Amino acid sequence: MERQDGQALGARALSHSPAPIETDALIIGAGPVGLFQAFQLGLLEISCHIVDALPAAGGQCVALYGHKPIYDIPGTPVTSGRDLAQSLLQQVAPFKPQFHFGEQVSTLARQPDDRLLLTTSAGTAFLAKTVFIAAGVGAFVPKRIAVEGIAQFEGSTLFYHPDSLDRFAGQTVVVNGGDDVALETAIALTALARQVTLVHRRDGFQADEANVAAMRTLVADGKLAFRVGQPSAFDGRLLQITTPDATTVDLPLDALVACLGISPRLGPIADWGFELERKQVPVDTEKYETREPGVFAVGDINTYPGKKKLIVCGFHEATLASWGAAARVFPGKAIPLQYTTTSTRLHELLGVAGVTGTTPR
Amino acid sequence: MERQDGQALGARALSHSPAPIETDALIIGAGPVGLFQAFQLGLLEISCHIVDALPAAGGQCVALYGHKPIYDIPGTPVTSGRDLAQSLLQQVAPFKPQFHFGEQVSTLARQPDDRLLLTTSAGTAFLAKTVFIAAGVGAFVPKRIAVEGIAQFEGSTLFYHPDSLDRFAGQTVVVNGGDDVALETAIALTALARQVTLVHRRDGFQADEANVAAMRTLVADGKLAFRVGQPSAFDGRLLQITTPDATTVDLPLDALVACLGISPRLGPIADWGFELERKQVPVDTEKYETREPGVFAVGDINTYPGKKKLIVCGFHEATLASWGAAARVFPGKAIPLQYTTTSTRLHELLGVAGVTGTTPR
Repeated sequence: MERQDGQALGARALSHSPAPIETDALIIGAGPVGLFQAFQLGLLEISCHIVDALPAAGGQCVALYGHKPIYDIPGTPVTSGRDLAQSLLQQVAPFKPQFHFGEQVSTLARQPDDRLLLTTSAGTAFLAKTVFIAAGVGAFVPKRIAVEGIAQFEGSTLFYHPDSLDRFAGQTVVVNGGDDVALETAIALTALARQVTLVHRRDGFQADEANVAAMRTLVADGKLAFRVGQPSAFDGRLLQITTPDATTVDLPLDALVACLGISPRLGPIADWGFELERKQVPVDTEKYETREPGVFAVGDINTYPGKKKLIVCGFHEATLASWGAAARVFPGKAIPLQYTTTSTRLHELLGVAGVTGTTPR
Repeated sequence: MERQDGQALGARALSHSPAPIETDALIIGAGPVGLFQAFQLGLLEISCHIVDALPAAGGQCVALYGHKPIYDIPGTPVTSGRDLAQSLLQQVAPFKPQFHFGEQVSTLARQPDDRLLLTTSAGTAFLAKTVFIAAGVGAFVPKRIAVEGIAQFEGSTLFYHPDSLDRFAGQTVVVNGGDDVALETAIALTALARQVTLVHRRDGFQADEANVAAMRTLVADGKLAFRVGQPSAFDGRLLQITTPDATTVDLPLDALVACLGISPRLGPIADWGFELERKQVPVDTEKYETREPGVFAVGDINTYPGKKKLIVCGFHEATLASWGAAARVFPGKAIPLQYTTTSTRLHELLGVAGVTGTTPR
C-alpha cells in the first residue's frame, strides 16, 4: 500500500509539473555549504536552484545548533549557526538563487541529452546540467510512524511536528511520542483541544523532569489521558495501538500528532548508485565530482582520503566543484580565475561596481 | 664577496642564537592562510612559531590590497585585506602563536632526530617537528641594488624602503629609484636633509604625474639634484654611478636610500629540493604534505590537481595539514574530530568555557 502511495505521488507530481524547470545547476541542500556553492557558481555566472527538506536555509547548522557558538569559520572568530546562515544568505543574495524549501529530492535520472532529471517529494521536476549534493548527513525530516499506508493521511488527520497547534482547537487529538517536544505538545494541547491522549511505547520519558511532572499532574487531574502502546493501524479516524501485553486498543480521533523526533535521513540519495562508503559519497579532490559525471558532492556527505566533516572543508569543496561545473556548463570555454578584489566583471555580478574600498585611506 | 657576506651573516646568526628554538610547528608566512594554520594547529593543541619577512601579519593581503574589498571569504559578505588579517589574528589569539616579523627563513635541513632545523635572515634558528610553508607567492622584500658586496652596508649607510626618514635629517642623501615611492621619498627628504640627489636609470618615471612635476620643480629650483645613471660601485661613503654614455660619476653621501620596489621572491624555498612546478610546491590532497615528510605547503604556494589560488582553498588546506601534523606531533595517539560548537575541551582552549550561546533564545 505504501508503494502504491509512492506511485500515486509520482503520478501527481508529474501532472502538477508537466514541464521541468531547466537550470544550469541544482543544489540539494541549503546548509552553509549549499549556500556557498550557490555563491561560487554565481561568481562563475552559473545560475542555480536549491532544494531543501527544511522550511528555511541553514540546514543542520540552524536545525541543530542555531543559537550555539561556532568558532572555526575562518575570519569569523565567533558566530552561530543562525548568524552564519544569515551571512551566507546575504553573500549569495546578488546571484538570486531560487529556493525550493520543504521538498526532498527523490529521483535522479540521466536523460538522453546528458542532462539530469530530478523530481522532488512536492512534485517539482528539474532538468539540470549539473547537480551538487550538499545534503550533509541527509535531509532533516520527522521520523514517521511505522504503520503501513499511514502516509496518505499526512496533512489531513496526521501531522508530524506541526508548527502551530491552533488548528486542533476543539478537536479530539492523540499525541504520539515520549520526548520533550511530544510532552510539550500534549501539555499545550490540553488548553485548547476538546480531548487529548498521549500515546508512548512505555511509561517512562526521555524528557525534562519538569515536563514529565506537568504531564503527570494533568493526567492525575483527568485533563490528559495517557496510554502505553505503539500505533499498529490507522484509518484516518481510528488509531489502533498495541499495548505491551499485545492487546489492541482503538482510539477515535480528529487528529493524530506525531512527535517522534527529527533526524537526518540520507533518503533517496542512497539509491542513486554512488557506491556509498559509510553512507558517504566518494568524490575526487580535483572537482569533488562523484562517479556520475556532472554530479558533485560537497560538505559532510562526501568522502575522500583525508576527509574531515568540517564546514571550512565544504567551502573549499564547493569552490573547486563550481569550476568542475563551469567546464560542463560552458564547454570549450577557457575561464580565467578572477579575484573579487580586482575584477570589474565580478564587481558587476556582485552589484558592487564602483565600490573601490571598504575603508578610505 | 657577496658569498662571503652570506657566510659572515650565517656565522653571526649562529653566534647570536646558539640554541635553536624548539617547537612542534613552524609556519613560514603570516598571511591569512598562515594565520588560520596556527588556529587549526591550536585546536589540535599544537603550538607554533610564525616567521614572516614583512613587519606585520597579513601578508600579500595587507601588502597589496589592504584597503580593497574582498567578497569571497565564506560567511563574510565583504571585508578588506586589513580587516581579514585582523579577524584572523583575533581568532588565533587564544593560541598565542609567537611571531617573528621582518625575518625570512633561509635554510631548511633535516636533523638526525628527524626534526627540521630552520634558520632565518635575522639569525633565528628553529628545531621544528613540522613545518608549514604558507609563503604565498614568496616573501615580500625590497628589490636590492645589484652591486657586489653592497649588502654589508644595509642598516648603516644603505637603507631599503625606510619606514621613517627622520634619521636622515641634515645628511647628504642619495635616493635611487624611479617610481612614486622613490619620488615621494626624495621630495620629502628635501625638507630635512642637507643635500638630496635622486638617481634613476633614465630621465623618465613610472609615477604619478604630480610627483614627477613636484620633483622637476625642486630640481629646477636647485633643491634637488637629479642624475641619470645606475649604481656600479659603493664603498659605504661613495656611490659610483654609470651613466648611459658609460662614464662614471662618484657621489659622496651619508646615506643611500633605495626604493626599487617591493616584490615577492620565492627566495630560498626554491633551493629546498621540492621539485617545484611553475614555482609552486607539489603536495598531496590528503594532508597537503610536500614530498618531504613533516613539511606541509598551504595556500598560493602549493599545487595539486584542481588547485585554485584562492584564500578559501588555503583555509581548507591548512585544516587538513594540521591533522597531518598531529599524526607526527602525537604519534600513535588517536585524535577525535571535535567541534568548536560542542567540545568542552575546545572551549577551554579557546578561552570560552562557560559560554553557551551567542544569542539567547
